[in-house]
Amino acid sequence: MEAHEVLEKVRQSEMSVKEAEAYFRRQPFEDMGYAKLDTHRKLRNGAAEVVFCSGKSDDHLVSIFERLWEQDGEVFGTRATEKQFELVRQKLPDIQYDPVSGILKIEKPDKERVGMIAVCTAGTADISVAEEAAQTAEYLGSYVERIYDVGVSGLHRLLSRLDVIQSANCVVAAAGMEGALASVIGGLVDKPVIAVPTSVGYGANMHGISALLTMINSCANGIAVVNIDNGYGAGYMASQINRLGERK
Amino acid sequence: MEAHEVLEKVRQSEMSVKEAEAYFRRQPFEDMGYAKLDTHRKLRNGAAEVVFCSGKSDDHLVSIFERLWEQDGEVFGTRATEKQFELVRQKLPDIQYDPVSGILKIEKPDKERVGMIAVCTAGTADISVAEEAAQTAEYLGSYVERIYDVGVSGLHRLLSRLDVIQSANCVVAAAGMEGALASVIGGLVDKPVIAVPTSVGYGANMHGISALLTMINSCANGIAVVNIDNGYGAGYMASQINRLGERK
Amino acid sequence: MEAHEVLEKVRQSEMSVKEAEAYFRRQPFEDMGYAKLDTHRKLRNGAAEVVFCSGKSDDHLVSIFERLWEQDGEVFGTRATEKQFELVRQKLPDIQYDPVSGILKIEKPDKERVGMIAVCTAGTADISVAEEAAQTAEYLGSYVERIYDVGVSGLHRLLSRLDVIQSANCVVAAAGMEGALASVIGGLVDKPVIAVPTSVGYGANMHGISALLTMINSCANGIAVVNIDNGYGAGYMASQINRLGERK
Amino acid sequence: MEAHEVLEKVRQSEMSVKEAEAYFRRQPFEDMGYAKLDTHRKLRNGAAEVVFCSGKSDDHLVSIFERLWEQDGEVFGTRATEKQFELVRQKLPDIQYDPVSGILKIEKPDKERVGMIAVCTAGTADISVAEEAAQTAEYLGSYVERIYDVGVSGLHRLLSRLDVIQSANCVVAAAGMEGALASVIGGLVDKPVIAVPTSVGYGANMHGISALLTMINSCANGIAVVNIDNGYGAGYMASQINRLGERK
Amino acid sequence: MEAHEVLEKVRQSEMSVKEAEAYFRRQPFEDMGYAKLDTHRKLRNGAAEVVFCSGKSDDHLVSIFERLWEQDGEVFGTRATEKQFELVRQKLPDIQYDPVSGILKIEKPDKERVGMIAVCTAGTADISVAEEAAQTAEYLGSYVERIYDVGVSGLHRLLSRLDVIQSANCVVAAAGMEGALASVIGGLVDKPVIAVPTSVGYGANMHGISALLTMINSCANGIAVVNIDNGYGAGYMASQINRLGERK
Amino acid sequence: MEAHEVLEKVRQSEMSVKEAEAYFRRQPFEDMGYAKLDTHRKLRNGAAEVVFCSGKSDDHLVSIFERLWEQDGEVFGTRATEKQFELVRQKLPDIQYDPVSGILKIEKPDKERVGMIAVCTAGTADISVAEEAAQTAEYLGSYVERIYDVGVSGLHRLLSRLDVIQSANCVVAAAGMEGALASVIGGLVDKPVIAVPTSVGYGANMHGISALLTMINSCANGIAVVNIDNGYGAGYMASQINRLGERK
Amino acid sequence: MEAHEVLEKVRQSEMSVKEAEAYFRRQPFEDMGYAKLDTHRKLRNGAAEVVFCSGKSDDHLVSIFERLWEQDGEVFGTRATEKQFELVRQKLPDIQYDPVSGILKIEKPDKERVGMIAVCTAGTADISVAEEAAQTAEYLGSYVERIYDVGVSGLHRLLSRLDVIQSANCVVAAAGMEGALASVIGGLVDKPVIAVPTSVGYGANMHGISALLTMINSCANGIAVVNIDNGYGAGYMASQINRLGERK
Amino acid sequence: MEAHEVLEKVRQSEMSVKEAEAYFRRQPFEDMGYAKLDTHRKLRNGAAEVVFCSGKSDDHLVSIFERLWEQDGEVFGTRATEKQFELVRQKLPDIQYDPVSGILKIEKPDKERVGMIAVCTAGTADISVAEEAAQTAEYLGSYVERIYDVGVSGLHRLLSRLDVIQSANCVVAAAGMEGALASVIGGLVDKPVIAVPTSVGYGANMHGISALLTMINSCANGIAVVNIDNGYGAGYMASQINRLGERK
Repeated sequence: MEAHEVLEKVRQSEMSVKEAEAYFRRQPFEDMGYAKLDTHRKLRNGAAEVVFCSGKSDDHLVSIFERLWEQDGEVFGTRATEKQFELVRQKLPDIQYDPVSGILKIEKPDKERVGMIAVCTAGTADISVAEEAAQTAEYLGSYVERIYDVGVSGLHRLLSRLDVIQSANCVVAAAGMEGALASVIGGLVDKPVIAVPTSVGYGANMHGISALLTMINSCANGIAVVNIDNGYGAGYMASQINRLGERK
Repeated sequence: MEAHEVLEKVRQSEMSVKEAEAYFRRQPFEDMGYAKLDTHRKLRNGAAEVVFCSGKSDDHLVSIFERLWEQDGEVFGTRATEKQFELVRQKLPDIQYDPVSGILKIEKPDKERVGMIAVCTAGTADISVAEEAAQTAEYLGSYVERIYDVGVSGLHRLLSRLDVIQSANCVVAAAGMEGALASVIGGLVDKPVIAVPTSVGYGANMHGISALLTMINSCANGIAVVNIDNGYGAGYMASQINRLGERK
Repeated sequence: MEAHEVLEKVRQSEMSVKEAEAYFRRQPFEDMGYAKLDTHRKLRNGAAEVVFCSGKSDDHLVSIFERLWEQDGEVFGTRATEKQFELVRQKLPDIQYDPVSGILKIEKPDKERVGMIAVCTAGTADISVAEEAAQTAEYLGSYVERIYDVGVSGLHRLLSRLDVIQSANCVVAAAGMEGALASVIGGLVDKPVIAVPTSVGYGANMHGISALLTMINSCANGIAVVNIDNGYGAGYMASQINRLGERK
Repeated sequence: MEAHEVLEKVRQSEMSVKEAEAYFRRQPFEDMGYAKLDTHRKLRNGAAEVVFCSGKSDDHLVSIFERLWEQDGEVFGTRATEKQFELVRQKLPDIQYDPVSGILKIEKPDKERVGMIAVCTAGTADISVAEEAAQTAEYLGSYVERIYDVGVSGLHRLLSRLDVIQSANCVVAAAGMEGALASVIGGLVDKPVIAVPTSVGYGANMHGISALLTMINSCANGIAVVNIDNGYGAGYMASQINRLGERK
Repeated sequence: MEAHEVLEKVRQSEMSVKEAEAYFRRQPFEDMGYAKLDTHRKLRNGAAEVVFCSGKSDDHLVSIFERLWEQDGEVFGTRATEKQFELVRQKLPDIQYDPVSGILKIEKPDKERVGMIAVCTAGTADISVAEEAAQTAEYLGSYVERIYDVGVSGLHRLLSRLDVIQSANCVVAAAGMEGALASVIGGLVDKPVIAVPTSVGYGANMHGISALLTMINSCANGIAVVNIDNGYGAGYMASQINRLGERK
Repeated sequence: MEAHEVLEKVRQSEMSVKEAEAYFRRQPFEDMGYAKLDTHRKLRNGAAEVVFCSGKSDDHLVSIFERLWEQDGEVFGTRATEKQFELVRQKLPDIQYDPVSGILKIEKPDKERVGMIAVCTAGTADISVAEEAAQTAEYLGSYVERIYDVGVSGLHRLLSRLDVIQSANCVVAAAGMEGALASVIGGLVDKPVIAVPTSVGYGANMHGISALLTMINSCANGIAVVNIDNGYGAGYMASQINRLGERK
Repeated sequence: MEAHEVLEKVRQSEMSVKEAEAYFRRQPFEDMGYAKLDTHRKLRNGAAEVVFCSGKSDDHLVSIFERLWEQDGEVFGTRATEKQFELVRQKLPDIQYDPVSGILKIEKPDKERVGMIAVCTAGTADISVAEEAAQTAEYLGSYVERIYDVGVSGLHRLLSRLDVIQSANCVVAAAGMEGALASVIGGLVDKPVIAVPTSVGYGANMHGISALLTMINSCANGIAVVNIDNGYGAGYMASQINRLGERK
Repeated sequence: MEAHEVLEKVRQSEMSVKEAEAYFRRQPFEDMGYAKLDTHRKLRNGAAEVVFCSGKSDDHLVSIFERLWEQDGEVFGTRATEKQFELVRQKLPDIQYDPVSGILKIEKPDKERVGMIAVCTAGTADISVAEEAAQTAEYLGSYVERIYDVGVSGLHRLLSRLDVIQSANCVVAAAGMEGALASVIGGLVDKPVIAVPTSVGYGANMHGISALLTMINSCANGIAVVNIDNGYGAGYMASQINRLGERK
């Protein structure tokens, strides 16, 4: 029973005020809240839910992929293994797998991609995280430029690509080790920088904690940070920002 | 001598190619680089540099404020003390001081403020950080709605202001203690959320580290984090995002 | 306008279904949500809100105390200073202050206290935290036995009071330094133990982090932990448990 | 020789006062102490000891299971592997194994379960910990409602089950990543909440430390925390509280 | 009523077996346990309790000092302030205060000191901790040699005192900063070394945590560690070891 | 050339003062220092070097075992694997291996063991560390009593063995999880306690760091701590102390 | 188009001042910057790039080795596995692999090595890191003396090699566990010491963090620290220093 | 009696070989060792000991300054307060005090300064640490160029001073907050970089720990790190390196 039905019954004295009050006391979240939020998810993503494949049971994974593909005509999963790819392919032969980023997807071919996000990495080892960010953003409808291996120990590499970086709506900076890339980019652009610490490194980097602290303490303006190796989160937020800049 | 002057001299054969080459080899950053970045700063801020007052010597502080006010007709400082306010006021009688946020400013009266940023806090103790964010964003030309004391332990307070929050281009969520506010807001809006951990709390919150970890590990999409108590950083980035959404 | 008034108007056709639907869509949390939670708070506490005095401005503090006292005929604040006591006393001459726990309160004289909570400390330096727990629980209607200075380095002290501890509905164990008290009590009683690490100690106790870790890692059953020095939280939860055991 | 036998012999002058005194001086803990605690354990659990299977040698594990089953007609182990299940099944063919929670048990079929505990999780990955809590509480005689996958990033899911949660005697909230679920539930119920941080997540969650800190620093009342992934501890304490609320 | 009285009554049928059983079930710790442990303390210390002065209220401190002095003819307190010295001196004019170590004491003049403990420091800033250790050990009846400022950055200083160090029953090594002294001494002597990390240093020594970790990870044999700045604990344990080596 | 030979040559004018001075300036450590320290090792151990097997190459390990056995007629290694045992057995068929502690040894059959060390553990999982301590102490000539599984959550188990523990010259307390055993024993005995944190536990115990902190912060007197899982170090130091108490 | 070409065109009026200005605004980093920095790398190393083999894909690794060998006639990789050695050997049969340090190289036979670096280790387990340092320095043209297993628990071993250590231009000190070696060497030499913490140890050394803290807090002068296990970094910097001392 | 005197006596048969042997066995460190190290200190510093003023008692400080000034005609102290300056000035009227760096010194006027060290800072707040480094290096005989406020958020500032930085023998890079300066400089120069993390910053920089981690994890070659705020240590090591590059 929906809210207006209850009110109609009250109006027609088919339900007492007390009963209606109990209904509203009990149901506000279930009914209206639920519907409202569902709508949000659609508006937000311009696409259905993204699947975090890591740790999912085989049966569960395959059925989620099938259901989402049927519903939306496309499906997108992160942190998938080679073995998960093989499993899903038996049901969805068009599925594509990128072993670098671990992304498993069927993407509609005619997707428009708006604006521009620059996804940068300090080294080649950060590319798996960066690809997760880039492909997430692309799936969510953003145009992405990849600018990899431009770490601060060889500054000329970064500076030679500055034009592209400066023309983006939003920059994703993925770096491990000391994570200084985000600060340097932050000082060179006038757009938001999403910093992604990666777990690349050894010793005192403590699986990315060092890079996370570097980025959080950045002296540059316009930088905010997501979790270690969270390429998906960076790509998602970058796409939100980029699309904001492109809406009519 | 500026770049175009050098080139003009080359064109008029008043300077040799070799001399000009030496000029460009030596000066790229000072001259053009500097100019370029200055231009950026203007585009970015719609205003001049912001002054971090904490720890500045008295003489230094006063002269910076005077110079910026002369140059731009407005000036904006963060983390100022009452005593610094008194000092600056002797030179700039129009200066205004907000003891809650520690902001010391002269702002042009006719400033247009575009778009909308929602600045939220979990408790009343987080307001000083939130005000730093809000006033920074306002100074940079954004319209701000303040939604304070809507922490997750009394969820109805947050939900009752949901309409406003959901209509913002960008949300700033400032919270100390366990910092759960950012995750809850992240699940309720479809716009970027800038999470600001505050040092409010005691015991195992370790001056904000706990809230920082909560926010970095958020299960919600579209959240990125700035340093503990860094209201300025949050306001700056939120304004970048907000203005991106409002440009023509 | 409250929920039942709206419904009454619908019933009497003084308000359309559509208008009422808008009311409920807009107001669920403010109106019903708020009311519901308020009702909860009353059921829970048997008393109004508790005031965290630390850091409140003078004006704010005094007006909160006045309002709560007028509303409930009693009022209870934690972490108050001597100076705050003097301030509030000017308006509420019956206010009482306990410098050990920092509690500032007017309590109804005829309050019934049910069940029994045993509040234990390892040393005398933990008493300030324990008193915050004990007086909170008493204010919320629980009977409390204080068993102080029974740390594990002199086990006979604890064992000699075992009868009382074993007859409680719930035990609060406050300890700093290595915090072993909670584990030892956990092995001796068959009721829930709320462990409160205190910041008492020096060196590697890191302001209570060591005691917190000890308690979280306890090998004994039936122990759960609150924040460092959080006597209020322990007393609150202990009272919830104790009253659960005493309801009809 | 038990205590009452010694006393009987003293009464009948078959043992001197001095000999008896020596007996009590030497044996207080073994004999009476031990018996007393054993009695406690029975009162507490309504069942015999729970077996922590992880790391036990094969022989040791099988013989413990056999002995407890013979003594009590039921037996309950946590953190068992598939391989341990196969081993024990050779001796106890009725043994049941739940691969999700790792629980290995024979439970009496006619067990009464009193009161109600709500066991909630933020995500599906937290279910293994939650099941350890739920099945422990059930084994100890509590009725349990499972409310899974109600994390704060989709608040409507939690709110739609609020009625059940609010009617429990005690709530267990299991969450990894940022662990905000406990705070949100704490603000919505008037019963004790046992928060269980889980090691679910990656990067800066540091195997559950982040969720632990979130929960310890919670701004909501009535929350206490057990160790990371300690479903057993949460279920045990919740059952203590729940049964306290149901005793005559 | 003591144990033998109860048993006597049972023998004379003045008390039933059941009543006596209840007595023993209830009292084992109070009666026998208590007496036993008290005796221990005397045997252990060869002196009465040591007073931790820090944080004690004025009244409490003075009365403890008076009572212990009356009982034992001597009294010993650690971490006392100048102000506490003045207070106690009004009641006990013979009290002596050492501002370096913060020790406040009246010591019997004719005390025999047995064996030998070498108390070493890395630098002059560690002397306050070392004096707490040395004077504690002396008060507990040990002979002490002080070997200060022999840190490893000038190895010749340490090596020139090696004869004395090698002839001790036990060595106390107090060091801050990197705390390497304990390892070097551990490799040079064949007696137990009690390592005391001190909070001396700055930056990444984190108030002694760095020195603590160094000492705990020592590659040398025969080293065990006490808390940061815990001179008292080191002196106490060293005295236990030294006296063990000197008993007949 | 040894020192006395040089001096003899000087006396007989076969070497100049300057040459001799150069010799002593260059050689002090090699010659005299070296000899002195070697002597120490023998006095200390009453046995030759102990071998840390973990990580040694196969060839290296076997040759060390052979050389030590030839030299001393006995040999003792810690942290050996089953595979290393098989390897060494091919050369030394009398070698014995204890899979619980990982100790690999040939021990002289007629060894006298003096004094008494009590080696205690909190749980059965701590036994591997405790056995490393116990067997090390036995190898170094101490008599050892093992008192296992006496953790503080079942205090009666510990108290029932108190007589033995109290009669030791030195106590080793090995415990993981919250590590409270050391504090409780420290309060019950008047001899030095060597506390060994173990890595037993899960979640917030962080591989033994929690137990280490508990023990370092102990409120009891006469406790010092060695590294996590360092049974060898505890056994070594306990043996030093025990033998000190037994020397003539 | 290079800078001088542009200027030539301006001079000959083939390009406008404005076009040239745009060129210089856009290209400063690409053109001049790039060339400048490339030159630096050659000057710095006296050799081509060093390859970090760990984690490189097979194809990538082999092609890098081939390319560098062709270009420079030598090639040097760190952290290579046995399997990577086999792979590269198929293309470059002269390649040499050192399983201790994981170095994979072809080095020109006639390389001059200048000055002297002393590479010291505390134990034998630190040798793999030390060899990475030593062979890196040798590849970069420095003469190296290896002084291994001279840890501070047996000081005579270090002192007996003091002459060699004191005659070096620079010392590398590699140590795990408590890492005290660097401080002791720092007090004995008058040349820069590069301290390399290693991850050797267990328990509270936390994979080298303890040794890192020890070295950073060193009380000796002239010590600076590189990352845990970073033998390459130490060897590189030591070689820079050593060669500085040998240039004409 | 010095070594050569003893040998002379042996030569002249005024002392027996045995007596002389005892002398050398007992005195090696005091006599020769001490002298040797003293000689080292002179060679190293080209000046006497540096005084760490912080925490020294007034009397102690003044007498050290007087003694060193008398001995060397110059004296140099770090971390002095204004008050200490006033005290010392009463005895040594020529003493100079720099309130920025806290350096208190009398320096010989005619000191030659060789080579060149570039001392760089990220911000103006790092200057106090940088001045400690710069003035230490100058006192030890090095020529220093100061390049302040060249942090990476405004890269052009750094690049415009690159010529000077690249011509130094050694670079000191002092930076707080995220500490990225060291990595960027490391990528631009071919000389050793001594990185000094400073405690400048707030929130998650944890008093310089964040900058320390950044610098230790640097991806650039040729960087080593000293303790937080340890300008003295950086200046000392930089001077060692610089002078090595300038010796004949």
